[in-house]
Amino acid sequence: MSASAPCPLCAGEGGQLLWRQTEYRVVRVSGAEAEDFPGFYRVIWNAHVSEWTDLTEAEQRLCMRALNGVERAVRSHLQPTKVNLASLGNVVPHLHWHVVARYDWDSRFPAPLWVPAHQPVPAQRLAEVRERLAGCDAAIASGVF
Amino acid sequence: MSASAPCPLCAGEGGQLLWRQTEYRVVRVSGAEAEDFPGFYRVIWNAHVSEWTDLTEAEQRLCMRALNGVERAVRSHLQPTKVNLASLGNVVPHLHWHVVARYDWDSRFPAPLWVPAHQPVPAQRLAEVRERLAGCDAAIASGVF
Repeated sequence: MSASAPCPLCAGEGGQLLWRQTEYRVVRVSGAEAEDFPGFYRVIWNAHVSEWTDLTEAEQRLCMRALNGVERAVRSHLQPTKVNLASLGNVVPHLHWHVVARYDWDSRFPAPLWVPAHQPVPAQRLAEVRERLAGCDAAIASGVF
Repeated sequence: MSASAPCPLCAGEGGQLLWRQTEYRVVRVSGAEAEDFPGFYRVIWNAHVSEWTDLTEAEQRLCMRALNGVERAVRSHLQPTKVNLASLGNVVPHLHWHVVARYDWDSRFPAPLWVPAHQPVPAQRLAEVRERLAGCDAAIASGVF
């Protein structure tokens, strides 16, 4: 992103919108980023702030309630080996949390999802997770917060 | 880590200990992991739990207060381009948060720190950050929480 490019999380939703309130929204990531990680959600703060400690304590609590709700939906519906949480923002410095269902059979496990793939993805396993996405999305969209 | 190996965050501190209280501790990461990232801290929950939502709301607040304190110390003393926060735990499923000072000149920027290096590290810049570590460590060790 060049310095003059508009922030993509100000200009767009950043994924498939599941829940929105004044302060934040929850999206599911689709497309290439989610190809090997179907259970990939984001909690995105609506205002353009960069760091977690740019939020007030009350704002953090709100955001954390959403993060918890998404993690609980992911654990309950997608039953991952591990949930990964991360707020990086090096490329897009607009506060957003990644919530990603990881499996011991996924293409990067146990490495972080951003490294190159080191094993093939078992198509059947991936399909099983994709089948459960609608339930997870519905739990989030019904407001688990 | 094999299934029979003891958890390294139960068996050891997980870094250079800066602050400990009953529920959690804060360490600075040293050695190979921190070679390119001198401003690399961890907030480690002392009890062996795996996921963020395994904590009660009160426990999360405690842990978040520490995470905020470390992030503030890092921002103030190390003045990074961006702070990266992550709770992954795929290799060591014992709840711990990474708090990492990232710089636009670091070996992986803007990629996540776990990918292979794509640019050489300017030794002078790295040395400047290392010089400021003592101040950041002292702020954390004096209890910024």
